[in-house]
Amino acid sequence: MTEDERQIRDLVATWMSATRSGDIDTVLTLMTDDVVFLVAGRPPFGKQEFAKALTPPAGAVLPKIDGHSEIQEIQVGGDWAFMWTRLTVEVTFPDGRPTRRAGHTLTVLHKKDGKWLLARDANLLTPITEQT
Amino acid sequence: MTEDERQIRDLVATWMSATRSGDIDTVLTLMTDDVVFLVAGRPPFGKQEFAKALTPPAGAVLPKIDGHSEIQEIQVGGDWAFMWTRLTVEVTFPDGRPTRRAGHTLTVLHKKDGKWLLARDANLLTPITEQT
Repeated sequence: MTEDERQIRDLVATWMSATRSGDIDTVLTLMTDDVVFLVAGRPPFGKQEFAKALTPPAGAVLPKIDGHSEIQEIQVGGDWAFMWTRLTVEVTFPDGRPTRRAGHTLTVLHKKDGKWLLARDANLLTPITEQT
Repeated sequence: MTEDERQIRDLVATWMSATRSGDIDTVLTLMTDDVVFLVAGRPPFGKQEFAKALTPPAGAVLPKIDGHSEIQEIQVGGDWAFMWTRLTVEVTFPDGRPTRRAGHTLTVLHKKDGKWLLARDANLLTPITEQT
């Protein structure tokens, strides 16, 4: 494993653990200022909208977010890299109701000042039905 | 515009025109042998499955496929590049029934033997309803 690949795997691990613990400030340090998130059925959005979606209104309880990421591939070309993952995200709302989404992501990373950051992200997750 | 970017834009133009004219053989020369297509709600698939989906059974008439791609960004790092596009695809079936899908793609390209090829592709298109 190259040093670049190790750093990118660390980035993913930090992203997942910070998300799990609701540490939004840390998650925001892991992306470029001009990050672009691409999802189906809505316009692309950036860092500010990402932060807003994860910041609770005063007095509100945020859902608990847990996730599991399996990195399928990392390729590095200069200061750019891409990564393809299989991702499962479970969101549990304050009333205990869980929702699960699973699928793949294709992510572009950019190395800035020696540090890899998430720069573009295509999220293909779809809801999955719980098996009872 | 760099020479790499020009070649990638040519690749997209060739892909769209070959798709439009049903020239599957040409489209298949524009991707790596280990290409991975990522879409929502189904497992990743490769070149063979892509070819199969576009090859008509004996005697069958294929739907007419037209598309319009607006490249939003191209970044090159060594022999890898990524591209983000806004894409609209219209498929017209032999009975005249059209369906339209629109959205974004995030694509990774790889330069092999001096030629850029599509290597990984995340397709976020969703059906759009015709305005009457």
